[in-house]
Amino acid sequence: MTSSAVTFSDSPGSLPVGSAVQAVRLTDEAVILLDQTALPQSVHYVSVDTVSEMVSAIQTMIVRGAPAIGVAGAYGLVLSARYHQKTLQDDMTAFKGALARDAHHLAMARPTAVNLQWAVDRLLKVIQSFEGPSVLELTQRVTAEANAIFEEDVAMCRAIGRHGAALVPQGARILTHCNAGALATAGYGTALGVVRAAFAKDASIQVYADETRPRLQGARLTTWEMVQEGIPVTLISDNMSAWLMKQGRVDLVIVGADRIAANGDVANKIGTYLLALAAKAHQVPFYVAAPSSTIDASLASGELIPIEERDGQEIGTIHEQAICPEGVQFYNPAFDVTPADLITGIITEHGVFEAPFQF
Amino acid sequence: MTSSAVTFSDSPGSLPVGSAVQAVRLTDEAVILLDQTALPQSVHYVSVDTVSEMVSAIQTMIVRGAPAIGVAGAYGLVLSARYHQKTLQDDMTAFKGALARDAHHLAMARPTAVNLQWAVDRLLKVIQSFEGPSVLELTQRVTAEANAIFEEDVAMCRAIGRHGAALVPQGARILTHCNAGALATAGYGTALGVVRAAFAKDASIQVYADETRPRLQGARLTTWEMVQEGIPVTLISDNMSAWLMKQGRVDLVIVGADRIAANGDVANKIGTYLLALAAKAHQVPFYVAAPSSTIDASLASGELIPIEERDGQEIGTIHEQAICPEGVQFYNPAFDVTPADLITGIITEHGVFEAPFQF
Repeated sequence: MTSSAVTFSDSPGSLPVGSAVQAVRLTDEAVILLDQTALPQSVHYVSVDTVSEMVSAIQTMIVRGAPAIGVAGAYGLVLSARYHQKTLQDDMTAFKGALARDAHHLAMARPTAVNLQWAVDRLLKVIQSFEGPSVLELTQRVTAEANAIFEEDVAMCRAIGRHGAALVPQGARILTHCNAGALATAGYGTALGVVRAAFAKDASIQVYADETRPRLQGARLTTWEMVQEGIPVTLISDNMSAWLMKQGRVDLVIVGADRIAANGDVANKIGTYLLALAAKAHQVPFYVAAPSSTIDASLASGELIPIEERDGQEIGTIHEQAICPEGVQFYNPAFDVTPADLITGIITEHGVFEAPFQF
Repeated sequence: MTSSAVTFSDSPGSLPVGSAVQAVRLTDEAVILLDQTALPQSVHYVSVDTVSEMVSAIQTMIVRGAPAIGVAGAYGLVLSARYHQKTLQDDMTAFKGALARDAHHLAMARPTAVNLQWAVDRLLKVIQSFEGPSVLELTQRVTAEANAIFEEDVAMCRAIGRHGAALVPQGARILTHCNAGALATAGYGTALGVVRAAFAKDASIQVYADETRPRLQGARLTTWEMVQEGIPVTLISDNMSAWLMKQGRVDLVIVGADRIAANGDVANKIGTYLLALAAKAHQVPFYVAAPSSTIDASLASGELIPIEERDGQEIGTIHEQAICPEGVQFYNPAFDVTPADLITGIITEHGVFEAPFQF
């Protein structure tokens, strides 16, 4: 992986994303990722050249957010095809086998978001159903399908924004958790797509951002996106949401999703469930915004969604300095599951679903 | 204020506190504070010589925790008496006036915890009712009363520990927020006094500590106290509590209090209210542990408790590095109010009160 502080906004292959922010981009040579671990201190891009580099970039959260890692996984498979076509151009069976192995590695990079598995599966179907003789042609097909996933994601986010903006009252104070923005998608965002669309209609809205410990995506990423857009944003600690609601200072909550079960249970960044409990207690509407690819119809309920546990040092250390003494244990689930009965509506590109959820 | 890494455990004036930790201590020359902003990286003491230094130490949270700042305020007034007796030894009226002015400054240092006002008022009563001619004798009376506040606080914490331990089931997993420990009191602690007393009877209990953003008192102080005592402790982010409860991993919650209204509403560290909502949703018992001096009978309900708002940079900066870009606003209430109906019981030195609270 090589890194660069150069921006790539004029590079070949740049696609319109509806915001100034582009987290993932395919070029002729590599996949360019905006390094989300370096924000907001620096706007820094890394060039990902191989599948193993892409797996590492997903695991270390250089790229994160369910739709964005779906796109990144798809582009990772493009890197795989470009690499293997050089040595396996005369052996379609071996080429497909190599792609399938890389697809498996990519899909396993993070377990909770379904979009990664979904995107990789979609490319695998193209690969498996391809009947031509040309490895080069299949590589082009894989590339076209990955780009289609990217472009569809942008279009879906814009549709989510349109549907969601209709739910936002005049002058609303919107609380969000983690980052479900342009950085978490191909561009524009899901929860923040709704914010962008609402702000375009009504410049008097404002945003409260939960800081979202331990990785601080709300503090680092959501506020950064809002500042780029000129949308007023106030940062709070995660533990302040209920007190803010108690004072009548929140009109609605909108969050993203990493996986949605068939019954409407939603896996999302740790803390979403606690926030949903607070919203329920204060009768504040609680919306989830996500593309329909986030819905995993194979899972009857949220109890079946695998929850990733990450290294405890993500909690124990901030800016490379310990916040607790030696001898302390950690519990660091990256996600939680919010039951459907705490959710007012799920905003997808097809419209807003309400309980009882039937997708 | 001078500082020193020396420990003062054998210094004159050391009083037994029931734990290895002593946050506040009066010597013949000064008040010695364990610098709680430096923990857990270093165990470091500062010597406070004047009233204005004590006000600053309270405001910057070198000493924090409602009972501890009560004791610190009382000792601050001892410093005042020692200082003014040198120049006003022949003018009792002027001496009392000087003490009253310093008492006012001390009591105003932080607005939410009632113990500070309570301790200062208690010394003011001694001062106002003193009828002798000797400034020296009054200084001695003030010192004796301040030491009595200290000693009573330790005794109250031990009584709270005894009453509370009876509520802790065998092998309990106890979740706590912020630090209501030896560091927050004259010694032993309120919520952590219950933990200490329970652990003395049953070494199979364990503690979950909320990290308690933005000042991280749970991460820095509560875990440190638990490690000193050999009590197993697991650190979580504040946003993980509900998910932990959902999995059946919390048997009870115990927190401290900064002020309790006559109806049982409790002001405590920001995040307590959110935690209480989570406990209610999962039918996890939620206890508050505090000396009866925390009860402010003059306030009918929690809505009347003043809530301190602190500098937003406490949220925006961690370890001297920004976590968000320029242009972000902050909201930083230091406390919130948990309504009485979310509280299972309030553990005081007189026993456990249950709703409807009548103190």
